[in-house]
Amino acid sequence: MSGLADLADIGRDTRRGGYSRHGFDRAEADMRLWFFEQSTRHGLDVYTDVNGNIWSWWGRPGPDAVVTGSHLDSVPGGGAFDGPLGVTSALDAVDALRAKGFQPKRPFAIVVFVEEEGGRFGVPCLGSRLLTGAIDPDRARNLADPNGITLAEAATNAGVDPAHLGPDPVLDNVGCFVELHVEQGRLLGNHPIGVASSILAHGRWRFTVTGEGNHAGSTELADRHDPMLPAATAVLAARQAIVGSASRATIGRLVPNPGGTNVIASSVDFWLDARGDDTRKILDEITAAARSAADAEGCQLTVREESFGEAVHFDAALRDRIQGILPGVPVVPTGAGHDAGILAARVPTAMLFVRNPTGISHAPAEHAEPSDCAAGTQALADVLEDLCR
Amino acid sequence: MSGLADLADIGRDTRRGGYSRHGFDRAEADMRLWFFEQSTRHGLDVYTDVNGNIWSWWGRPGPDAVVTGSHLDSVPGGGAFDGPLGVTSALDAVDALRAKGFQPKRPFAIVVFVEEEGGRFGVPCLGSRLLTGAIDPDRARNLADPNGITLAEAATNAGVDPAHLGPDPVLDNVGCFVELHVEQGRLLGNHPIGVASSILAHGRWRFTVTGEGNHAGSTELADRHDPMLPAATAVLAARQAIVGSASRATIGRLVPNPGGTNVIASSVDFWLDARGDDTRKILDEITAAARSAADAEGCQLTVREESFGEAVHFDAALRDRIQGILPGVPVVPTGAGHDAGILAARVPTAMLFVRNPTGISHAPAEHAEPSDCAAGTQALADVLEDLCR
Repeated sequence: MSGLADLADIGRDTRRGGYSRHGFDRAEADMRLWFFEQSTRHGLDVYTDVNGNIWSWWGRPGPDAVVTGSHLDSVPGGGAFDGPLGVTSALDAVDALRAKGFQPKRPFAIVVFVEEEGGRFGVPCLGSRLLTGAIDPDRARNLADPNGITLAEAATNAGVDPAHLGPDPVLDNVGCFVELHVEQGRLLGNHPIGVASSILAHGRWRFTVTGEGNHAGSTELADRHDPMLPAATAVLAARQAIVGSASRATIGRLVPNPGGTNVIASSVDFWLDARGDDTRKILDEITAAARSAADAEGCQLTVREESFGEAVHFDAALRDRIQGILPGVPVVPTGAGHDAGILAARVPTAMLFVRNPTGISHAPAEHAEPSDCAAGTQALADVLEDLCR
Repeated sequence: MSGLADLADIGRDTRRGGYSRHGFDRAEADMRLWFFEQSTRHGLDVYTDVNGNIWSWWGRPGPDAVVTGSHLDSVPGGGAFDGPLGVTSALDAVDALRAKGFQPKRPFAIVVFVEEEGGRFGVPCLGSRLLTGAIDPDRARNLADPNGITLAEAATNAGVDPAHLGPDPVLDNVGCFVELHVEQGRLLGNHPIGVASSILAHGRWRFTVTGEGNHAGSTELADRHDPMLPAATAVLAARQAIVGSASRATIGRLVPNPGGTNVIASSVDFWLDARGDDTRKILDEITAAARSAADAEGCQLTVREESFGEAVHFDAALRDRIQGILPGVPVVPTGAGHDAGILAARVPTAMLFVRNPTGISHAPAEHAEPSDCAAGTQALADVLEDLCR
């Protein structure tokens, strides 16, 4: 928890509330700098991989390493815990293990992944996707932020050579990965800690509706081709698509262009975030509703997939082992995506969750009690100690 | 038209297309500087009133002046003609009158009004409203742009003392006002020039829907309080409200907060622009639809009026005189607001329109043919010559 206090003033978003820390931006740079300093202070050796993910090694790097960690970026206007808690808890766990004189028998590292939220370049888990080869480096280099700055440009400015983005041999040394994270629902009840069973399938799609920009006052009804109408139809269709389903569909980002009060928009971009077993069906329903509304309004619709990941089922053997280390810990699924979900395709992976009393996440009100965070650190230390024997 | 070429590179908006020039911003400052230089070149004496509106006098200022002019700001991503055409045509008309040796017998000025579009501070015709006392200076000083910069701060940075905002004695010298403007519909048919009869009543309202920011993946349906749903409902209701009516209702600006792809928005702001005889009824219908959707979603709705102006009927005697000067000129209404509509409450006011072949305005595609612009300049020169006899 001490680490979270260090970070309390970095990347505050005075307009949205909470924090805005995005891949390779100024706030994230300050977060990374803090992690470099902390790594040195904890006697860890820092290695930055070709994608800018940071690996801090306790002892010599080597094969079959036990790795823990999370990310330091946030959604726009996010909370203090999503990401940083997994990093500060890892550092605190190292302190706890050192304090009892423990020396890991396996190589051990804390990792910080870049741009987990996709808050700047649109693709979530970008650092872990690049590391594992789950995204083509050429596609990644050309991703652009809302100001048109490409990942290649932003990486260059952050001292990461975009020519080298992609798989890094450090992954070959990872024997298992355990990520601690604040829970993002309310599934833990009276348990301060839980262990993850699975992550919902998750896709993001960018919809663009093109109409005709015009004057809000002088344009008669028959001359209007207003892309806001298909966009609004899609927002309502996204809700309709999940009624009676366990899946999720959200449109939380919508940008009319030019966005003037007295202007009929010329185009609207919006993003669908959909998760669950019937994500493709949900996408089809929303697309059909938006297309029908676009046709009626004389607008054009394009839909582009920005990312898609199948459901993740975490390694059963590792989960069983953790349940043995932490007796009585509940096993819960999550709808949230994580770097652990990406690494799970390559190495045995597990997640620990720290209770979230309200379930609110990706918002300034996100919270975890200090005593629950302390229990999380202790649980993580116990798991790492056992894995590193 | 030569003036428009001078301005072609000022305030281009590479993201939206077209131009973004807003009250007291950098682009508008460059536009103002250009007008100062042109005034000097045309032998006009510049006076900046307490609100930053610029008055360039041909000869000595004095009572019962003939005044023409328009504005140099734009909507976000606007066209080249809306505003600047009225200023460049006025300068060209002065050239034409000087070329024939004409000397005005009445005081004469070209005026440039600040922030006509309300593109930065939300209130249209801000400069003319302040001048005529149509807006309380205290309210104006506290208007804020999307970055939270107040009008008082922006005015200070532009060298205008916000303490003095409000009515200016220069208005007492205005005997009549004639504004030339690009037409914003397609009412002129085969006539290059028209004269205005009236402006629709026009209101702007800011709607704020507050829900609960949360995680797009982990938040179950029952826990969602998504303000995008009432906002989308309002967008569709705004269209429904004008079917079968001659009124207009547009929602072209909508901002989810925080606006992340994987975040249920905590709040959404959107702006209704409504015009016509039943504007209040339209507002009530849209508000009722949004409120009902907000209640169903567990969200709160607030609605705040940002501006409202009753319908304007331009001075009949001045219009008749103009029809005498320009035989056969058609008389047309407009749904667009103008500084002329604000001044009409205080002095005899008229407007000349230059044909717009597509009717598109407030968009990069806004256009007027050079020959029609030349006809506009000639018509304006003829009207000014007659009025200044």
